[in-house]
Amino acid sequence: MTRANSRVNTVKIVEVGPRDGLQNESKLIPADIKIELIQRLISAGVHFIEAGAFVSPKWVPQMADSDQVIQAAHKLISDQVISALVPNMQGYTQAQKNQLKEIAVFTAASESFTHNNINATITQSMERFTPIVQQALKDDVRVRGYVSCAVHCPYEGFIQPQAVLEVARNLLQIGCYEVSIGDTTGQATPSHIQLLFEHLLEHIPAQHLAGHFHDTYGLALANVYQAWQQGIRIFDTAVGGLGGCPYSPGASGNLATEDIVFLLDGLGVNTGINLPQLVETACWISDITAKQQRSKVCLALAAPYNKQ
Amino acid sequence: MTRANSRVNTVKIVEVGPRDGLQNESKLIPADIKIELIQRLISAGVHFIEAGAFVSPKWVPQMADSDQVIQAAHKLISDQVISALVPNMQGYTQAQKNQLKEIAVFTAASESFTHNNINATITQSMERFTPIVQQALKDDVRVRGYVSCAVHCPYEGFIQPQAVLEVARNLLQIGCYEVSIGDTTGQATPSHIQLLFEHLLEHIPAQHLAGHFHDTYGLALANVYQAWQQGIRIFDTAVGGLGGCPYSPGASGNLATEDIVFLLDGLGVNTGINLPQLVETACWISDITAKQQRSKVCLALAAPYNKQ
Repeated sequence: MTRANSRVNTVKIVEVGPRDGLQNESKLIPADIKIELIQRLISAGVHFIEAGAFVSPKWVPQMADSDQVIQAAHKLISDQVISALVPNMQGYTQAQKNQLKEIAVFTAASESFTHNNINATITQSMERFTPIVQQALKDDVRVRGYVSCAVHCPYEGFIQPQAVLEVARNLLQIGCYEVSIGDTTGQATPSHIQLLFEHLLEHIPAQHLAGHFHDTYGLALANVYQAWQQGIRIFDTAVGGLGGCPYSPGASGNLATEDIVFLLDGLGVNTGINLPQLVETACWISDITAKQQRSKVCLALAAPYNKQ
Repeated sequence: MTRANSRVNTVKIVEVGPRDGLQNESKLIPADIKIELIQRLISAGVHFIEAGAFVSPKWVPQMADSDQVIQAAHKLISDQVISALVPNMQGYTQAQKNQLKEIAVFTAASESFTHNNINATITQSMERFTPIVQQALKDDVRVRGYVSCAVHCPYEGFIQPQAVLEVARNLLQIGCYEVSIGDTTGQATPSHIQLLFEHLLEHIPAQHLAGHFHDTYGLALANVYQAWQQGIRIFDTAVGGLGGCPYSPGASGNLATEDIVFLLDGLGVNTGINLPQLVETACWISDITAKQQRSKVCLALAAPYNKQ
C-alpha cells in the first residue's frame, strides 16, 4: 500500500509545523530544535513534512536556517517526503541546491490579500511562479500550491467559491500536483466548506485537493469532518497547533496534528501516525515555544505534562 | 415566535456554566459573582440557565449557596427559565421552596459509572428519582433528564446505543420533557454521534433530545454539527468552557457557549444570543476562575483581554 490517498480509508496528513507553524511563533527556534522536531515527527509516523522556506531571512528570520535544517532532514528520511516553501526563482535555486523533490508555492483567492501580502494581483502572483513550476517539472520536482483566503479574507470578508475554483484550476494547469485550500482566518463553518468543496469537486478530482483549515474559532475539526464526508483525503496540520493567527494576536492558527489524528482514529481512518508519540512531541515543542494555549488532545492525553 | 425549538432554524442553548461548569472549577466562586454571571448571561440573550444544584454542600461545596443564587436569579428574569439539579426528594423540597419551575435529574448509560458515581445501578437511580418526577409533574414543574456516558464511559469504554435508548426512553416515560445525551468523556467522534442519534431518533422525536458534548478532545463542535444535521436543536454548553474534565486533570470539559454560538451564527441559525456580549462575559468569568485554557472564540474575538 502506498502512503498517499490510494485507499478510501486513508488520509494524507501534511505536517506544516516546522515551517508554517514555527514561522508564526514569535520565539526564534534554533536549527537543532527544528531538526529534532522533524526527527520526532518521522519517528511518530508522519510522512509528509514541510520543513522550511527559502525566503528572505530579512522578512522571515525564523526560516533563515532552512538550508541547515533540510540538509539534516535528508539524513533522517527513508521514503518520507520533505518540502519547502519557495516564493521566487532565487528560492527555487536554493531548493535545488538542497536536493528537494517537492516544493510549495502560494497565492490567494482574494485580490486584497495578495496585494497586502505580496504586493501583487492574483494573476501577477501566478505569473511570478509559473516559470518556477515549469522548471520544477523539468527537474522532476513536485509542486504543491497553496490558496490562502479560500473562504474568508481579513480585508474583503467572505470569498466566492468561483474565485477559489479559478485559482485552484490555474495552479493545477500550470503543473501543481495538489492544491491546498486554506481557510486562513478560520472563519469557515462546515456549511461554507460544504458549498466550497461542492463547487470545487464539480471540476477538480478530490485527489488533487487538500484542506488547510485554521482553528482560530475552534471549527477546524468540524470543517475537516465536512470535507472528509465530501471525499477530501488530504489535510495540512501542525503538531501542537504551532503558529498563531496574525489577524488576531493570541488566537489559534493551524489545526493541531494530534487533534486531527484523534478524530481520524475515531472515524477508523488510517493516517500511519502514532498518537501517543505525536502528543509527546506536541508537549515537547509547546514547552520550547512556551505556547500557553495547547491543543485539546494534548491537554487531555498528556496530563503529566500540564502546567495548569 | 417562542424561544424553544419551534422553528427549524432556531437552536435552544441550555447554559450550564453556573452549575455544571462552576461545580467542576476548583476555585470557590462567591454567590455575588454567580449572580452577576447569570445577570450577564441574561443580558447577552441566554434564555435557559441551569443556575445551581440542591445537593449536599459536603459533597459539592461550590453549590452550597444555590438558594441565595436562585433567589437573586428570580429577580433578574422575565420569561427566561432557570433550573437546578436535584438528586433526591430533599433537594426537590429545596427546589420547591425556591419556586423553581424546572429541575434536572441525572443518571447514566453505564452501570459502572452509576455505581462509581452514585453507588447505584441505573435501575436504582431511576427508582430514586421517579417519585421526584411524579411530584414535580403534580406541582407543574418541568423535569429535564441527563444521561451521562452516552457514548463512552471512563470505566467501561464505548457504550452501545441500545443502552442509551433504554435510559432515555425510561426518563421520558416517567415524565421528563427533555433528555440531554451526554458525551461525558469527550471521546465521541461525529461517527459515534451519527450512529447514536440514528438509533435514538428511530424511537424518540428530536424535540425531546438535547446534545451535551464535552470538548475534551476538541470534537464537541464537530459533534454538534453532526447532531444538528440529524435534526437535534437543543445543546448544553457553558460560557467560557467553564468546568474541567474530572477524568483528565487540566483538560477541557464543557463546550464553550461562545464557540457554539459562533458556529450557529455561521450556519445562519438563530440562538437569540449576542456573541460579543457573551465573549465579554466569557473573558470576565475566565479571569475570575483564573482559567488558563480559554475557548478559541474567546481568544480570537477578545484580543485585548488576552494575557498571552
